[in-house]
Amino acid sequence: MTPHPAERSGRARWRDKLHEIIFEAETPAGKAFDTALIICILLSVAAVILESVEIVDDRYGDALYAIEWFFTILFSIEYVLRLISVGLPLRYAISFYGIVDLLAILPTYLSIFIPGSQSLLTIRMLRLLRVFRVFKLRAYLTEATVITDALKASRRKIIVFLTAVITIVIIMGSLIYVVEGEENGFTDIPRSIYWAIVTLTTVGYGDVTPKTSLGQTIASIVMVMGYGIIAVPTGIVTVEMSRAAQRKSVSTRSCVECGAEGHDLDATYCKRCGAEL
Amino acid sequence: MTPHPAERSGRARWRDKLHEIIFEAETPAGKAFDTALIICILLSVAAVILESVEIVDDRYGDALYAIEWFFTILFSIEYVLRLISVGLPLRYAISFYGIVDLLAILPTYLSIFIPGSQSLLTIRMLRLLRVFRVFKLRAYLTEATVITDALKASRRKIIVFLTAVITIVIIMGSLIYVVEGEENGFTDIPRSIYWAIVTLTTVGYGDVTPKTSLGQTIASIVMVMGYGIIAVPTGIVTVEMSRAAQRKSVSTRSCVECGAEGHDLDATYCKRCGAEL
Amino acid sequence: MTPHPAERSGRARWRDKLHEIIFEAETPAGKAFDTALIICILLSVAAVILESVEIVDDRYGDALYAIEWFFTILFSIEYVLRLISVGLPLRYAISFYGIVDLLAILPTYLSIFIPGSQSLLTIRMLRLLRVFRVFKLRAYLTEATVITDALKASRRKIIVFLTAVITIVIIMGSLIYVVEGEENGFTDIPRSIYWAIVTLTTVGYGDVTPKTSLGQTIASIVMVMGYGIIAVPTGIVTVEMSRAAQRKSVSTRSCVECGAEGHDLDATYCKRCGAEL
Amino acid sequence: MTPHPAERSGRARWRDKLHEIIFEAETPAGKAFDTALIICILLSVAAVILESVEIVDDRYGDALYAIEWFFTILFSIEYVLRLISVGLPLRYAISFYGIVDLLAILPTYLSIFIPGSQSLLTIRMLRLLRVFRVFKLRAYLTEATVITDALKASRRKIIVFLTAVITIVIIMGSLIYVVEGEENGFTDIPRSIYWAIVTLTTVGYGDVTPKTSLGQTIASIVMVMGYGIIAVPTGIVTVEMSRAAQRKSVSTRSCVECGAEGHDLDATYCKRCGAEL
Repeated sequence: MTPHPAERSGRARWRDKLHEIIFEAETPAGKAFDTALIICILLSVAAVILESVEIVDDRYGDALYAIEWFFTILFSIEYVLRLISVGLPLRYAISFYGIVDLLAILPTYLSIFIPGSQSLLTIRMLRLLRVFRVFKLRAYLTEATVITDALKASRRKIIVFLTAVITIVIIMGSLIYVVEGEENGFTDIPRSIYWAIVTLTTVGYGDVTPKTSLGQTIASIVMVMGYGIIAVPTGIVTVEMSRAAQRKSVSTRSCVECGAEGHDLDATYCKRCGAEL
Repeated sequence: MTPHPAERSGRARWRDKLHEIIFEAETPAGKAFDTALIICILLSVAAVILESVEIVDDRYGDALYAIEWFFTILFSIEYVLRLISVGLPLRYAISFYGIVDLLAILPTYLSIFIPGSQSLLTIRMLRLLRVFRVFKLRAYLTEATVITDALKASRRKIIVFLTAVITIVIIMGSLIYVVEGEENGFTDIPRSIYWAIVTLTTVGYGDVTPKTSLGQTIASIVMVMGYGIIAVPTGIVTVEMSRAAQRKSVSTRSCVECGAEGHDLDATYCKRCGAEL
Repeated sequence: MTPHPAERSGRARWRDKLHEIIFEAETPAGKAFDTALIICILLSVAAVILESVEIVDDRYGDALYAIEWFFTILFSIEYVLRLISVGLPLRYAISFYGIVDLLAILPTYLSIFIPGSQSLLTIRMLRLLRVFRVFKLRAYLTEATVITDALKASRRKIIVFLTAVITIVIIMGSLIYVVEGEENGFTDIPRSIYWAIVTLTTVGYGDVTPKTSLGQTIASIVMVMGYGIIAVPTGIVTVEMSRAAQRKSVSTRSCVECGAEGHDLDATYCKRCGAEL
Repeated sequence: MTPHPAERSGRARWRDKLHEIIFEAETPAGKAFDTALIICILLSVAAVILESVEIVDDRYGDALYAIEWFFTILFSIEYVLRLISVGLPLRYAISFYGIVDLLAILPTYLSIFIPGSQSLLTIRMLRLLRVFRVFKLRAYLTEATVITDALKASRRKIIVFLTAVITIVIIMGSLIYVVEGEENGFTDIPRSIYWAIVTLTTVGYGDVTPKTSLGQTIASIVMVMGYGIIAVPTGIVTVEMSRAAQRKSVSTRSCVECGAEGHDLDATYCKRCGAEL
C-alpha cells in the first residue's frame, strides 16, 4: 500500500504526515494512533454485543446507541482519511483491509433502513488483524504467517478434501431422506444434507436424528466416516507445518562462489556449483 | 478404457470420433462435451434437491419433474453412446465409472414403481469425479492422488483400526444395554450399539443418553476412549502423507563418484564429494 | 503358551494332537478349527444381538435361546479341551486369552440367576483377536503390532494426559455445579463431572447444559480446552508412529566385524566399532 | 523455592527439618509426608464429591461435614508450616503452588458465609501435581515436561490460533443472531457467540440450533470450519513434539576428525570417517 516514490514527491506534506500516522506503526504518532484504534474497536464491539442483551438494552440502550454512532462516525472519518492519505485510493478500497474497513461502518448506516443489522458491526474485529503490528506483536505475526503459509501450501489438498466432503454429504443426505422420510424430521433434501454435515463433522446437535434401524445404520456409517476423515486435513496441515519447520532448520550458509542458499546442514560442497562451503 | 489398437483399426471412423468426444478431454470437442456434462450434472442435482422442498415443489413441481426426465433421458443416451463407442463395452459397464453412470439414471426409471426414489439421483455427483479433468484441474487430481495414495498405503492399518472400533462398540453397547435397560431408552442391543457409535465418534446426538450413575460412568469411559482413539487414524494418515511428501522432494539420483544419495531436486553437484551429478 | 520340550515328551500323543488343532493355525486341522471357531463366534454374537430385539425375540425367541445354549456348551467344551491340552493349564487360565475364553461362556450360566446378563456374551468378539491368525491375516497382525507398539511407547505420556483430563473435569465440574446449581440440571458433582467429560471430549449430548451466562462462559472455556487438548494425544501417537516408520527405514546391514545393527542408510563405517561396512 | 544458603545458616534446626519433611521427597520422612498428603487430598476430594449427592448427604451428611473441616484444618496447619519453614514466605505465597495451597483451604471457610462454595474444594486436585514426585513418578514428570515444553514452544502459535477462533465466533455469532433472531432461541449476541463456540468446537449440545434455511447454511459453514480448523492446533503440537523427540534421540557430539554431526546416541565411531568419537 506504500505509494510510488514518484507520486510521493508530488504530494503535500500533510498527506505524508497523515499516511505515516494512519498506516505506519513504527513512529510514536503511528503507534499512538494504532493503540487508540485497538481500544476503539474493542469498545465498539463490546457496545454492540451488550446492546443485543435485552436487560442491558432496556437500561443503557440510549447510551449504547450513542456510542455506536460515535464510533461509526469516528471510523467513517478515519476511512475517508485513509482514502485521502493513500497514494492509490482505489487500490486501497478494493484491498482486503479496505473492504473490511468499509464493512466495519456500513451496518450502522444500514440499520436506519433495516433495524437489527447493526449487530453485524462485530465484523470490526477483523480490523484488529491489522493493528496486530503494535506492541511488539511482530513475533506473533511471524507465527501467524507460518500457519497461513502452511494453509496456503495445502490449499489444493484442502479444496479436494472439501469437494469430497460436499459430495459425501449430498449423497448421504439424499440417502437418509429416502430412508427416513418426512415423518422422522427429514422434511427435504437440504435439511437432510444439513443433518449429514452435522453428523459428519461430529457436531451432532440432535435436532434431526434417524429413527429407523436402517437410518441409524446409515448414520453410523456417516459418523465413522467423519471420525476417520478428520485425519485427512490434520495430516495435510501437519505435514505442511513440519515442512515449514524444516525449511527453518536448513543451513543459513550461502555459497561464496555462486551465492546459492538452502544447503543441508551436513553439506560440505555447494550443491549448485560444487565449490567447497 | 482405451481400446486395443487391433480393435480400433477395425472400427468405423464415427465410433473413433465419438470415443474422442466422450472419453477424451484434450481435444476442443472433448472439452466442450465435458463442460456441458458438468453443467448438466450440477443442474440436475440442483433440480432433484429443489424438488424435495415442499414449497418449491408445490409451485414448480411440473417443471422440475420435466427437467428430471429431460436429464435422465439425456444421460441415458450418453450411457448408450459410451457403451457403443468403447472397445470393450462390458468392461466399461462393470468399471467403477460405468456403474456410477448407470446408477445416475436408474432412480428416475425406478421412481415410476417406487415414488420418492428419484432423490437418489444425487449420486450423479460422483460423475463429477471424472470430469475433474477439464479446466486444468489436473493439478488437483495430483493432490487427490497424494491423499488417495496415503489412504491406500494405510489401508491395512485402517482396517485393523475399524475392526477394533467395531469390537469396542459391540461390547460397550451390550454393557450399557445391560446396565441402563429398556426403561432408559436402550431398547435393544442394535440401538445400544448405535448409541456407542454416536458416543465413541464424539457426535453425541443426545437422542439416547444414560440416566443411571453407572451408565454415565460407562459413557464417560467410551467418550474418553473415543477422544483418545481418534489419534490413531490421524497418526496413520499423517505419517503416510509425510512419507509421500518426502518421496517427492528428494532426488533419486546418486553421485557417480561417491554414490551418495538423498540430493535435493535442484542439486547439480554432489553435496558429499563435490562431483558433478 | 508353547509347552516346555521336557513336558511335551512325557505327554500322551492325543494331547499333542489336540494342542496342535486348538492352538496352532498352520496345519490343515488347526486352520479348519480356527475357521469353524470364527463362524461360531460371529453366529453366536449375532444371535445374542438379535435376541435383544423384541419383535425378533417374540417370534424366534426359543430358537435363539437354544442357539445361545448350544454355542455356550460348545465353547465350554472347547475351554475344557484347551485346559487339558495345554502344558501349564493355570498359566493359560490366568492369561489374557484364558480370561476372555472364560468370560465368553460365563454370562449364559449367570443368566439362570440374573436374567438379561446373557447380553454380555458379546464379549466373545474379543476371541476374534486370536483367530486373526488364519486366512493370511498375519500382515494385518503386523500392522496391529505397529499401532499397539506406538500406543505402548506413548503409554506414560497417555497416563500423564489422562491424569490432566481427570483433574480438569473434576475441577470444572465442581465449578459449574456451584455456578449453575441443581435448578439447572446439575444435581450433584458426579453429574457435573459427567457433564464436563461430555463437553471436554466434544461429545455434547445436550442432556445437561448450562443455562446462566456465567455457566455458558465456563462451558465455552471447557469446549475450547477440549478442542485444543485433543491435539496432545494426536501429537503423541503421530510422533511414535513416525518413529516406528523410521525404524523400518533404518539400514538392515549388520557390521561384519562386531555384528552391530541399526546403521543409518548413508553410513559408511560401523558406528559401534569403526569397521568399514 | 530453595532458600538462599546465607539464610539457611541462620535458621533454627527444626525449621530445616520441617522444610525437609514438607518440601523434599527423597528422604524417608519426606516420602512418608507426601504419601500421607496424597491420601488426604484424594479422601477430601472424594468427601466433597459425595457430599453433593443428595441421598449420600441425607445419610452421612454430618460425617462428611466433619471430614471436610478435619481436612481443611489439617491443610491449614500444613499451609502455615510451609510458610514458616520456607526461607522466603512471600515468594512461596505468590508462587503457583502457594496459591493452589491457599485456594485448597479457602472454600471451606467461605462456605460459612456462602453456603455451597465448599464444592470448589476440588481444586485440591491440583495439589496432586506436586506430590507426583513420590513413588518413582519422576519418569512421568519427564514425559509431562515433554508435553509442557511442546505446548510452551507453540505458545505463540496457540495464541494466534485462539485469537482467530475468538474473532470467528464473534463474527459468526453476530451473523446468526441477525439471521435467526430471538424467536429461534438466539436471544442475544452473547448467547449466539456461545452457540458459535458450541458449533465450531464440534461439541453440538443442540440446546440452541438454527431453524431457518439460511441459518442452517451458516451453521454448516461454521461446522466445516471447525472440522478443518482443528487440524491447526494438532499440526502445531505434533510438529513441536516431533522436534522435542528428535532433539532427544540424536547425540550432540561431533566427530573430532571430520566434524560430522547427527550421530546416534549409541555410536562410538564417526559414521562418516570411522574415527573414534
